[in-house]
Amino acid sequence: MIILGLDPGLGTTGWGLIAADGNRLRHVGNGQIKTEPSMPLPRRLSNLYEALGEMIRVERPDSAAAEEVLGNTNAQSTLKLGQARGVVLLAAASAGLAVGEYHPSVVKKAVVGTGGADKRQIQAMVGHLLPGVKLSGPDAADALAVAITHAHHLASAQARARRSTGIGA
Amino acid sequence: MIILGLDPGLGTTGWGLIAADGNRLRHVGNGQIKTEPSMPLPRRLSNLYEALGEMIRVERPDSAAAEEVLGNTNAQSTLKLGQARGVVLLAAASAGLAVGEYHPSVVKKAVVGTGGADKRQIQAMVGHLLPGVKLSGPDAADALAVAITHAHHLASAQARARRSTGIGA
Repeated sequence: MIILGLDPGLGTTGWGLIAADGNRLRHVGNGQIKTEPSMPLPRRLSNLYEALGEMIRVERPDSAAAEEVLGNTNAQSTLKLGQARGVVLLAAASAGLAVGEYHPSVVKKAVVGTGGADKRQIQAMVGHLLPGVKLSGPDAADALAVAITHAHHLASAQARARRSTGIGA
Repeated sequence: MIILGLDPGLGTTGWGLIAADGNRLRHVGNGQIKTEPSMPLPRRLSNLYEALGEMIRVERPDSAAAEEVLGNTNAQSTLKLGQARGVVLLAAASAGLAVGEYHPSVVKKAVVGTGGADKRQIQAMVGHLLPGVKLSGPDAADALAVAITHAHHLASAQARARRSTGIGA
């Protein structure tokens, strides 16, 4: 099963693909899509959508997940992030992918073991969990961390389903 | 020239179409696209994008404009609005439309004459400026107000261009 993780942003959107077989994970690819700040916003969103759609058409993931974002007290930056995130979720949904959403603290806990991990710790653990991975940057690392979280979540759900079948529930 | 005005929202996005010939305006159509709150966010965004894209394909506007939004102190609602707005701008950009952006106070000033007008005043003035219009709701009225603002803006820009040509600039 190929899982696509997404870390949306207007300036830079990270993506990461892993192959998951239960709890065994393998790196497939990662990258960062950047949009040009000098361009009009609709054009930037359109470029982001096209680039992401192209990657999805080529890589054909089976499932997707994106980091939940909480926004912050700066309404303008929250709005920018929201606009990019809407387009990123749309690109996945348009390709027929269900999109899991995970709170950043859940991603950190799943990957590093603590909800308060910093970016460096995430990058180090992503490198450890996906041996040989070359990271395109911190946003790609975050995207791979989301994909890993989603893989764990799906594996746990499957294990629960098997257990409950085993006891006849 | 057919101008599309857009008032983005995740629950309800208003749209309004007017035909503009200089400062003479005629109502063409208006409506509201609603998404189902019980659905997953990516699905809601996808439904919004499809409905808006379909309307644009049928109506074939020449130009588009959307209200700028400032967000507010509630980061979650700003984020929701941003996600919907990103998808709305993308739908217009994907159809090859340039999208003008106008601050709400600019729209109010253009339509009512004062930047502090309320929703009822906007609806009344939209009805006055576009005789015979039947409004689908307040968000459609706001969308028509944005279209009217864009029409004024384009007419002024044309007039300025003619004047500067007239004096040999």
